[in-house]
Amino acid sequence: MDKTHSSGGRPVPTVADVAAAAGVSTATVSRCLNSPTVVSEKTLKRVMEAVERLGYSPNFSARALASNRTNMVGAIIPTMENAIFARGLQAFQEELQRHGRTLLVASSSYRLDLEEQQIKTLSARGADALLLIGYQRDARIYDYLEKRDIPVVLTWASRPDSGLLSVGFDNRKAMKQLADMVIQEGYTAIGCISAETGTNDRARDRVEGIRAAMRDAHLDPGTLQLIETTYSIENGEAAFAQLMSGAAQPEVVMCGNDVLAIGALKGAASLGLRVPEDVAITGFDDIELAQVAPYPLTTVHVPHRRMGQLAARVLVETLDGLEPPSVELPVEICRRQTL
Amino acid sequence: MDKTHSSGGRPVPTVADVAAAAGVSTATVSRCLNSPTVVSEKTLKRVMEAVERLGYSPNFSARALASNRTNMVGAIIPTMENAIFARGLQAFQEELQRHGRTLLVASSSYRLDLEEQQIKTLSARGADALLLIGYQRDARIYDYLEKRDIPVVLTWASRPDSGLLSVGFDNRKAMKQLADMVIQEGYTAIGCISAETGTNDRARDRVEGIRAAMRDAHLDPGTLQLIETTYSIENGEAAFAQLMSGAAQPEVVMCGNDVLAIGALKGAASLGLRVPEDVAITGFDDIELAQVAPYPLTTVHVPHRRMGQLAARVLVETLDGLEPPSVELPVEICRRQTL
Repeated sequence: MDKTHSSGGRPVPTVADVAAAAGVSTATVSRCLNSPTVVSEKTLKRVMEAVERLGYSPNFSARALASNRTNMVGAIIPTMENAIFARGLQAFQEELQRHGRTLLVASSSYRLDLEEQQIKTLSARGADALLLIGYQRDARIYDYLEKRDIPVVLTWASRPDSGLLSVGFDNRKAMKQLADMVIQEGYTAIGCISAETGTNDRARDRVEGIRAAMRDAHLDPGTLQLIETTYSIENGEAAFAQLMSGAAQPEVVMCGNDVLAIGALKGAASLGLRVPEDVAITGFDDIELAQVAPYPLTTVHVPHRRMGQLAARVLVETLDGLEPPSVELPVEICRRQTL
Repeated sequence: MDKTHSSGGRPVPTVADVAAAAGVSTATVSRCLNSPTVVSEKTLKRVMEAVERLGYSPNFSARALASNRTNMVGAIIPTMENAIFARGLQAFQEELQRHGRTLLVASSSYRLDLEEQQIKTLSARGADALLLIGYQRDARIYDYLEKRDIPVVLTWASRPDSGLLSVGFDNRKAMKQLADMVIQEGYTAIGCISAETGTNDRARDRVEGIRAAMRDAHLDPGTLQLIETTYSIENGEAAFAQLMSGAAQPEVVMCGNDVLAIGALKGAASLGLRVPEDVAITGFDDIELAQVAPYPLTTVHVPHRRMGQLAARVLVETLDGLEPPSVELPVEICRRQTL
C-alpha cells in the first residue's frame, strides 16, 4: 500500500501501519473501526491504542467513493427549538451511534421549500438514509430519493396505506381520543389553537380528530373556533386572548401542542381566568415541563424517545437490505389539572 | 468530461450538462451550488431549474477528496434534551446554512470519553471544523485537531487566556452577579444544586461564582451547602428535598440550571413551602419556560441564539483563512418571582 503524504510532508499512517503496530490483520482493524461491537474487547483496545498512537484517521471520503456508503444518516426536523423534536432526535442519534452511524441534522423552520432544499443538500453530502417528520411533501421528492436509492423513514405520523416506511403515531386518532374525553366531561363550546394546517399534516390531522369527536357526539363541527398560528408561547397567549374576546367564548381550548397550551395558560392568568373552572386547556406532546408548568397540563403523551430509537433501527435494517415493516406506536392521554 | 454511469446504466448528468442546459459556464453552476448568495437571482433560478430537470447531484465525495473540504461542520453538545443547547444549535445551523455549510451533530451525554470518541468520528467523517461546549478536555484532543487542521470554537464558556477560540460568556462572573444580588437581599444560608463539577467546567465555574460572592460579603464559603447531581427535573426535586431535610435549611437554593430549578420548585410545592417567602430559588439559562413555570423564575439569561450565530460566523471566517478574535458575550440577570 502506498503511503500518501499530508500537505506538511509528514507521512499519513495507513490501515496497514495500524495493523502492523497492533499485530493484527487489516481486516481486524477495519472491523474495529466499523463494527466495534463484534470484536473482542482486548483486540479493540489494542487496535484503538495503535490508531491513537499513530494518529490514524480512516479516509472516509475515499471509502465513501468506493462503497457508495458514508454511514451518515440525515434528519430534517421543523425546528430544534421544540424540546420534543430535540428529545426524539437525541434517542435517534444514540441508536444510530450504537450502529456506527453519524447523524447529520438540518431544520426547515416548518417550510416545505426549505425542507426540499435540505433533502437535496443532505443527499448530495452523502446521507445514506433520511428521517423526515410527517408525510406531507411533493411526490417528486419521494421520486428523487428513490432514484438515488436513499431510504426514508417518516416519523410523527402514521400512514400505513401510503406505501411509505413510517415509525409514528396516528395524530387524528390521538387527538380524537382527547376530544372524546373533553366532550364526555360536558364541554360543548370548543376552541382550538393549531399550527398552520395547510403545510403541516400533523396539525391538520389533530384538528380533524377534534372535528371527528364532535361529529360522533352530535355536535356541529362547524362550531369549532379555530385559530391557526405558529408554535410559540407568545403566539399561544395571543391566540387565547383572541378566542376569549369573541362573542362565543369557548369553555375549553384544545391546543395543537404543549408550547401553545402553556401560552394559553399564561393568557388565562393575564385575564384572571381560573383553569379549569373558568376555562379548560389541553396540550399535545407531553414535553417534560408539561408536568409542572404553570399547572400540570392535561395532554397527549407522544412516545418520542421510543419513536426516535425505532426509527433508527428501521433505517439501519433497511440499509442492511432487510424490509422492516412500518410501526404505529400507541399514545397515552395524560389527565392532569387543566381539564 | 467523461460521462460516468450509475449502476442502472443511466448516464449521470455532469456539471457540464447543467451548464449547457442553463446556458452558463460550469464556473457559474459551481457558484450557484456553493455560494448561491453571490449569484443573481435570475441566474440562480435558471441554473437550479436545470439542476432539477436533469436530476444533477454534485459529487461531494469526489470533491471532498480533491479539495479536502466537505463544507460540513460538526457540533458536539452534552445533550439535545436541554432546550437551551437545542436552541443555540438551531441558531448555529441557520447561520451555517446561510454560508452553504451543513451541520453534523453528536451528543456526548456529558461524558468526556464519549466526547473524545465523537470528536474523532466527526473528524474522520470529514467535518471541516467543530463546535464544542466548554473548555474542559484533555490537551491531546486539541493537539489531535490541530494536527488535522480542524479549527474549533468553544462555546458556553469564555477563556480568552487559554489561546483557544471561543464565543461564550464567563460562567463564574455571571453566577457571581446573581449571588451578589441574593446576598444583598439578606440571604446568608445558601444551598446550591449543581451538575457534577469534576467533569463540567461550566458547572464548576458557576459554583465558584457563588463562593466568590460569599467571600466578598464576608460569608464563609465553607458554609455553602452543595449537592451535585445530573440535570433533570426529578434530580432537582430530590436534591431540593435533601437540602431541606438537613439540620441547617438554606434560605435560598441557587441551581446550576433552570431544569434543576424547576425541579426545586416542584420539591418546594411538595413540601408545602412558599417561594420565595419560605425559600428562594434561582436558575441559570433562561429557557423559554423559565418565564412561566411553575412561577416565573429568577435566573441568568444566556444569549444562546446570539452565541450560536456568532460561533458559526467565527468558524466560517476561520475556514476562509481569517483569524477572528474570541467573543465574550454579556449575560443578564432576570429577576422574576422566585427571589
